[in-house]
Amino acid sequence: MNKIAIVGSGFIGRSWSILFARAGHPVQLFDNDAATAGQAIGIIETSLNDLAAHGLVDDPAAVLGRITIGETLAETLDGAVHVQEAVSENLDIKSAIFREMDKLAAPETVLASSSSTLPASTYSDGLPGKHRCLLAHPLNPPHLVPLVEICPAPWTDEASIKRTWALMDSIGQTPITMKKEVPGFIVNRLQVALLNEAFALLEDDCISASDIDKAITEGLGLRWSVVGPFETIDLNASGGLSHYVQIFANQYYEMMKDRGTVKPWSDDVVSIANDAMREAMPLEKIPESQARRDTRLMALAKLRNKAE
Amino acid sequence: MNKIAIVGSGFIGRSWSILFARAGHPVQLFDNDAATAGQAIGIIETSLNDLAAHGLVDDPAAVLGRITIGETLAETLDGAVHVQEAVSENLDIKSAIFREMDKLAAPETVLASSSSTLPASTYSDGLPGKHRCLLAHPLNPPHLVPLVEICPAPWTDEASIKRTWALMDSIGQTPITMKKEVPGFIVNRLQVALLNEAFALLEDDCISASDIDKAITEGLGLRWSVVGPFETIDLNASGGLSHYVQIFANQYYEMMKDRGTVKPWSDDVVSIANDAMREAMPLEKIPESQARRDTRLMALAKLRNKAE
Repeated sequence: MNKIAIVGSGFIGRSWSILFARAGHPVQLFDNDAATAGQAIGIIETSLNDLAAHGLVDDPAAVLGRITIGETLAETLDGAVHVQEAVSENLDIKSAIFREMDKLAAPETVLASSSSTLPASTYSDGLPGKHRCLLAHPLNPPHLVPLVEICPAPWTDEASIKRTWALMDSIGQTPITMKKEVPGFIVNRLQVALLNEAFALLEDDCISASDIDKAITEGLGLRWSVVGPFETIDLNASGGLSHYVQIFANQYYEMMKDRGTVKPWSDDVVSIANDAMREAMPLEKIPESQARRDTRLMALAKLRNKAE
Repeated sequence: MNKIAIVGSGFIGRSWSILFARAGHPVQLFDNDAATAGQAIGIIETSLNDLAAHGLVDDPAAVLGRITIGETLAETLDGAVHVQEAVSENLDIKSAIFREMDKLAAPETVLASSSSTLPASTYSDGLPGKHRCLLAHPLNPPHLVPLVEICPAPWTDEASIKRTWALMDSIGQTPITMKKEVPGFIVNRLQVALLNEAFALLEDDCISASDIDKAITEGLGLRWSVVGPFETIDLNASGGLSHYVQIFANQYYEMMKDRGTVKPWSDDVVSIANDAMREAMPLEKIPESQARRDTRLMALAKLRNKAE
């Protein structure tokens, strides 16, 4: 198993470490901030024990044993076939670390960013090794939600894209490949499209925020966790997707066309949604709710593992 | 347990029968087409055995024993506390059956339509009992996806809305309540908002249709089956939803604003999506895919039952 380097030991970097190490890779984790790096192993150990308790890791001690902290970036990248960057969401910081990584990493090593907003072209432009730079964006939390968006810069070579896809697939993640850079990539655009309509329905006073959440968890989201949006409509007409579109597209267009152009979310509607959240759960209980979310995601992950 | 009347014995009517009878209600099922009605019990029996095999029904014979076929609409509605209409999606047919149902049902009995597109105001207007007419729209398949959208007409009384909410809740469904009629109700508007962006990404040649489906089943949809869209963003910033909006709303607006107004799906993009579906699965295999979808939904339903 080839060595993987993780740069940045915050939540996302630790989660990547778990994913690669669980699949058997030796992982070296680096952070410019030695104090943060020093705490990482302890936090990873707690996560691994939690995953083991839910049947998602067989031997947490063995997984932990494959993860080491690098003293320097050079040591961390030495011998790594893949570098997964997970530093702060800041273009200057990303650009600086990509410059350094490109100097230190072996020529064939892929340099992948975990950024949720910054495309690879913005921090790899001008680098000698820009052809092996790309985005590999996980969802939150990465070790419980398998999707990884791979998005190449215009100059990323095909080999780097393919190697990253194969690596992500081999560790049990689900990679998808964008053909070009688009602001927000895929997942956030789909998420925001739905949120725009959710906020609009709230602003029109059609329904409460908590009922909109239920419409998704107990309805659309439940179904979409099993069949995607295109397959959903493909399975809902005897002649498949094009038949479904024939029947429904016109009324769907009529029902949505009055929304006009995309609008910013108003302060008022954000207050309504936020008040509804706080009424259901005070701010200090957010960590409890995150833990409940993750417990449910772990149960789903286990169910999916069994189904395979 | 009070008697429930189901009018229309197609897929949705049969599914409602299962839901109410499983919860212990005596159910009488009526169809204007005697041949369709005659086949209903046999099909329901098969479904019940399937549900029992997945641990979702304890005693399928007992459930089946609570379901009878009504000879006439009058007999079917006699003594029923709730009538769930599930006839064809056609305004004339719905109007005619609501006129008849309003004549025959006891004064306090709620008359609920399962329509996915026609609001209750369009077929209850002018009826003496229009105050007890409303929409109670299930998702497909109703006995595996718990959400029910309750949408009153402008003249529906509060008591009918509350009784319907309590009834749906008592049989294990998850009711949500709209405050007024909006074309498409809630779920289809949210679904179409996401589909519009999915088709636009496909039209821009950013990604394949099957990768968009994966972005949902392995990412957004998986997470949304556990936390709704508002709770998702509420849990993704330390200060909750309003803090998340502070950080991200502007870039979300910038990234989506160029989409302009809602456009009809073009024939070209529908072909691209349809071709992708057919490449993955020929038309004659749609029933197999539906069965696979339902098997997965049954596994999720069982997992959710255990978690309660």
